[in-house]
Amino acid sequence: MNAPDKIQTFRHVGTRPVRPDGVDKVTGKALYGTDFKAPGMLWGAILRSPHPHARIVSIDTRAAEKLSGVKAVATGKDLPTLESLVMHVGEGASDIVDISHNCLAFDKVLYEGHAVAAVAAITPEIAREAAALIAVDYEVLPHVLGLDEALADDAPLIREPAEGRSEEKPSNVAMEVTMGKGDVEAALAGAAAVVKGHYTMEPVHQGYIEPHACVASWNADGQAQIWCSSQGHFMIRSLTASVLAMAQSDIRVMPLEIGGGFGGKTTVYLEPVAMILSRKSGRPVRLGMSREDVFRATGPAPGAVIDVRLGAEADGTLVAAEVIFKYHSGAFAANDAGAGVASAVGHYRIANTRLSGIQVLCNRPAAKAYRSPGAPQVNFAVESAIDELAIKLGMDPLELRLRNAARPGDLQTSGLPWGEIGWVQCLEAAKAHPHWSAPLGPNQGRGIAGGYWGNFGGPSTVNLSVAEDGTFTVATGSPDIGGSRASMAIMAAEVLEVPYEQVRCIVADTASIGVSFVTVGSRTTFATGMATVEAARDVKRLMCERAARTWQVADENVEWREGHAVCIAGEKQGEKMSAAQIAGSSLHSGGPIAVTSALSAKGWLPGFGFHICDVEVDPETGHVAVVRYTAVQDVGRAIHADYVEGQIQGGVAQGIGWALNETYIYNKDGKLENPGFLDYRMPVASDMPMIDTVMVEVPNPEHPYGVKGVGEVPIVPPLAAVANAVHAATGKRMRSLPMSPDKVHAALHGDR
Amino acid sequence: MNAPDKIQTFRHVGTRPVRPDGVDKVTGKALYGTDFKAPGMLWGAILRSPHPHARIVSIDTRAAEKLSGVKAVATGKDLPTLESLVMHVGEGASDIVDISHNCLAFDKVLYEGHAVAAVAAITPEIAREAAALIAVDYEVLPHVLGLDEALADDAPLIREPAEGRSEEKPSNVAMEVTMGKGDVEAALAGAAAVVKGHYTMEPVHQGYIEPHACVASWNADGQAQIWCSSQGHFMIRSLTASVLAMAQSDIRVMPLEIGGGFGGKTTVYLEPVAMILSRKSGRPVRLGMSREDVFRATGPAPGAVIDVRLGAEADGTLVAAEVIFKYHSGAFAANDAGAGVASAVGHYRIANTRLSGIQVLCNRPAAKAYRSPGAPQVNFAVESAIDELAIKLGMDPLELRLRNAARPGDLQTSGLPWGEIGWVQCLEAAKAHPHWSAPLGPNQGRGIAGGYWGNFGGPSTVNLSVAEDGTFTVATGSPDIGGSRASMAIMAAEVLEVPYEQVRCIVADTASIGVSFVTVGSRTTFATGMATVEAARDVKRLMCERAARTWQVADENVEWREGHAVCIAGEKQGEKMSAAQIAGSSLHSGGPIAVTSALSAKGWLPGFGFHICDVEVDPETGHVAVVRYTAVQDVGRAIHADYVEGQIQGGVAQGIGWALNETYIYNKDGKLENPGFLDYRMPVASDMPMIDTVMVEVPNPEHPYGVKGVGEVPIVPPLAAVANAVHAATGKRMRSLPMSPDKVHAALHGDR
Repeated sequence: MNAPDKIQTFRHVGTRPVRPDGVDKVTGKALYGTDFKAPGMLWGAILRSPHPHARIVSIDTRAAEKLSGVKAVATGKDLPTLESLVMHVGEGASDIVDISHNCLAFDKVLYEGHAVAAVAAITPEIAREAAALIAVDYEVLPHVLGLDEALADDAPLIREPAEGRSEEKPSNVAMEVTMGKGDVEAALAGAAAVVKGHYTMEPVHQGYIEPHACVASWNADGQAQIWCSSQGHFMIRSLTASVLAMAQSDIRVMPLEIGGGFGGKTTVYLEPVAMILSRKSGRPVRLGMSREDVFRATGPAPGAVIDVRLGAEADGTLVAAEVIFKYHSGAFAANDAGAGVASAVGHYRIANTRLSGIQVLCNRPAAKAYRSPGAPQVNFAVESAIDELAIKLGMDPLELRLRNAARPGDLQTSGLPWGEIGWVQCLEAAKAHPHWSAPLGPNQGRGIAGGYWGNFGGPSTVNLSVAEDGTFTVATGSPDIGGSRASMAIMAAEVLEVPYEQVRCIVADTASIGVSFVTVGSRTTFATGMATVEAARDVKRLMCERAARTWQVADENVEWREGHAVCIAGEKQGEKMSAAQIAGSSLHSGGPIAVTSALSAKGWLPGFGFHICDVEVDPETGHVAVVRYTAVQDVGRAIHADYVEGQIQGGVAQGIGWALNETYIYNKDGKLENPGFLDYRMPVASDMPMIDTVMVEVPNPEHPYGVKGVGEVPIVPPLAAVANAVHAATGKRMRSLPMSPDKVHAALHGDR
Repeated sequence: MNAPDKIQTFRHVGTRPVRPDGVDKVTGKALYGTDFKAPGMLWGAILRSPHPHARIVSIDTRAAEKLSGVKAVATGKDLPTLESLVMHVGEGASDIVDISHNCLAFDKVLYEGHAVAAVAAITPEIAREAAALIAVDYEVLPHVLGLDEALADDAPLIREPAEGRSEEKPSNVAMEVTMGKGDVEAALAGAAAVVKGHYTMEPVHQGYIEPHACVASWNADGQAQIWCSSQGHFMIRSLTASVLAMAQSDIRVMPLEIGGGFGGKTTVYLEPVAMILSRKSGRPVRLGMSREDVFRATGPAPGAVIDVRLGAEADGTLVAAEVIFKYHSGAFAANDAGAGVASAVGHYRIANTRLSGIQVLCNRPAAKAYRSPGAPQVNFAVESAIDELAIKLGMDPLELRLRNAARPGDLQTSGLPWGEIGWVQCLEAAKAHPHWSAPLGPNQGRGIAGGYWGNFGGPSTVNLSVAEDGTFTVATGSPDIGGSRASMAIMAAEVLEVPYEQVRCIVADTASIGVSFVTVGSRTTFATGMATVEAARDVKRLMCERAARTWQVADENVEWREGHAVCIAGEKQGEKMSAAQIAGSSLHSGGPIAVTSALSAKGWLPGFGFHICDVEVDPETGHVAVVRYTAVQDVGRAIHADYVEGQIQGGVAQGIGWALNETYIYNKDGKLENPGFLDYRMPVASDMPMIDTVMVEVPNPEHPYGVKGVGEVPIVPPLAAVANAVHAATGKRMRSLPMSPDKVHAALHGDR
């Protein structure tokens, strides 16, 4: 794609037009996962395990099947076996088996709330009653929840070694990632100042407002439709097809609105089960989760145990970093450790590094992506340690970061050089911001932290078509999670030089458009946006060609200006045709004007953020109130400025919840005791100050409008920013999250 | 497109695979117009005029508005005026005003059943009650239904001349078409045999099983969705947008299954009204017609009065043809006369012709397209006259037709030469068919007739995408009326050399795909098929390029064979990649494999048919039973043979109904007395013999698989074929349709 013109002025990019999906949502017309009903639909219910770890000896479904109104009952035996999946999926079949066994347990239940059986009936009440009639005989096994406990020699094994498969020594380690360079021990030995710390944190949930829900309809001829809310309906299609050993083209997934995902809606939990119930009953089947189901059975971000050592010269130059960590994997393999290693210290120039992470299986729901997956945990430890180091060196913590900050051309952890990153610009902007020098009140402290996440591009498809009246429709395969309908319309209108309202954007189902990767990794405005820009350029070119054909002039004599094809040379010079004129006559000039742009977007750049946080700590109760917060972020270039600021504010709010409040409370039997928003304490509006945002724009040269992803990184710095602020306010270094009142009180008053 | 290879053998083309939409339809899961429900939806009702012609003095909606549960009331005053439509639509605004005034009468009602006002309420019962509470003050005007009556000097004028607009003399003639060549009078004067006849027929309804129904939802921000059954959801979008002066991209039309259209679902009746009710109420609104509404207020095919003169030399060579006719236009302008003129005698070589038709306004619902619009009426007259001429000349009527039949290169009525038409081949095939020489029983007679219709191509868009597992989805913008999902899948599978089941076809909504013209004129298998073939070729080429990139060989060293990319030269020679392998790695090789093909298809060719009909006439009752029927048709090349035969059988059945039974019965007050299937007598299964079909394949050289449209022409010959058979059985020439028992009895026994 062309490099963005840095001095270009834009017609639409960076403005704040009315969101095109707003009225539908505030009037309640928009259909979310739970709102869709199909004629003749049955209601499903899932029976879930009461035990965190048990062998399923037998399941007796007869009483449920006999209940009047019950149309189908399903268990894990209804899912294709590993052998048949290997036949169908080939490579990667074992990952699919994990997903399958997470949808319905096969021989063992691996966490409290693990789905064991499902029922479809004519009413939700009958379905729940029938589910309760299913008799499961469990052989309860010892369970393990903690990272260190799961690694003990006598820990119960979550995954039993496959028969005849020799592993060196069976353990709960699901995977390990190690990277590094130089000689960390030598560098630490020679450093003027060294800090080390042991950090811990619990898993936290993505906390989306909308529980998972879907409707599936599987016909006798093997063709099916699924309506659901997700971060990627193509992901729903491919995973459901793989789990059920079906052809992807036999499944049409219709995207519904999504009420929050944050990485947590990137897998299938219900869809394959609803499909089986539909096949058995011959009717569409709805399955939905309660809030309790969401907490017990859907993926949290992993908790972590992290050991950090940092060393610096007297002038503040960082010389060594060691980050050794363990992440929860939950009941099945997960991979946050890779991103954890990659993003631990890559924002600094450090000659000697040792970075190593493992994922540990335990009797919790399988860990799933959550905004900047893998990064906030290690960042909390590293940015806390940097703060400590600055104090030890007697340096301004912002200056310490600025001195060591990675710049374009410096090497990333991967060994590749950084591109046009805006990390230094964020630090400079923060330094100049009034917040940085504002006075503090009693019991208040100011903390700072910075961080980044790698972002992604990848496959996206866009269909762009022109109606006979010259108005435009952009169809994407990417669910609109953070305003992509608005940002695609802006970018297309920018290319086409037409009013924003003349371009509408919709999310097309899996049969109507080509494959688009799941909306994750802050990729959509970047990658789907790139496809939109390419499609709009194609449409512009086509319209110029049609005008040239009509005028009977050479193509090069026609240019697109201000929403019109204009003849710029020859005897027709100065003549103009609008999109409406061109599209209205397209029957005679070559057919409808409609294009597809399908690409795998390259050239993404990571997002960098730097946050300033003021807290006030109540010395009596240990309660920490965030009283002022400023998030500075390199956004590349903001397409729709409101949405970008909203992403930053949302990420900060979630990070503050992670820092201060959120945690799972399991009892000794491995059962979750706080599966609801009342007890699982996410921040509410009254907990939060206004989150100020500062958008730094260092355009991405690989994107036509300079876009970098903005959604991930704002959750990264808050954990350490809040902890550093608490330290500033109290002198206490909090190394365990959440910094709940009891822990802060204990730190202040030494009660434990 | 490449010319079809006549000796090519096909993998899928011409086979009869299971239809992909069959299970959904027979199990009742498929959603038709009336099945769709939106959450919060209101129910609409329409108040219709009890008078065939009246001025609306006033409409008082207050009582309706006050009724509890009523949320909105609409009248013609809620529709944009001509002035604002001229601003919005520009050229063609007056046609849009006609459509608008047909949806809701403005100052006059023009036929019994004309919509006058509409209500939306929380239940259908309340909506109907409220509609009945609307008080309309009418000034009843004289009405006119018949063609000759409407042309009388003192006939009431349906359309009053616009003020200040001088017309020569106001009349009910809506339009006139005249074509011809040579000197008809001289040729008739010199002819060895001349026949002349006066033919009449009543309007007939398309008789689709599914009444019109839609749901519209128009948001406060001006964006709307419509769900409806139609022959073209892009037509619904463009007409609704035009009638309401909206941008097309602000309306998203979701196609539902269609329960028959036959040309009658090519306009809007309900959609703009439901939109207005939705805007006023803020809720989705459903409107549906009853069977009575369909008969009273939706377009029939025009009735006709036709005068024919034919002259021939003694050897049977036709020398002159004159066809002068009048067609009903109904309450608004229609255009069947153009096709009537074009298709009256173009299937014969005749040196001297005079062809002239007019459309006549009257107080009936506006005439709409019905299978081969404009052709069956004139064909009935001409093919009856040919029969008469054969008798007069003492010639075999088939030989007479063969002698005069148009061949490729002969001139059409338009003056352009015929392309590769298969008319002679149809006649030859009929001559060789056992039916032609089979013996007849008592009171039986055999009639024959032939005819054609021009067919169409035009704009179609197809999206073709490859899932990660190498299965394919074809999305079209053409509703599936006669099996296009199956035929598109066949053509794509043929190009891609993969199993039929590996390709699925869906109908995409107006926002997900580019513009596609309404499914009419037997254009879809031809034009949308051409777009499908082009898209499949593009996909094949893309997959070969991806394979070449993976193998790092030149593109020309890779060919597509048997569903695989195969390296045909160099060191990778013999290596193969499946679609699954290519699509599965498309992330790394350039992105998703998805293409759009948008074209305006040229090169269509008319369909020709020749029918043999045996009837048995009951001399006591005048009842005519069709006892054997064979329809021979040049189909170009059948893609899905079952569907092609089904089209032929369906057209014949409708033609037999037109010939023998169907008619509107209006009383003296201009009110329809038979608005139901009990009294408006369409043929049912027990009325019909098995319709034998003979598919003659004269491939269309302009289509990659040789397709010609097949849906229109089978309704053309039956009218005359049945009448000629009745003549053969009884010696009575029936020149007035329908040939109902009373008329046949009268002809036999002279009772009138």
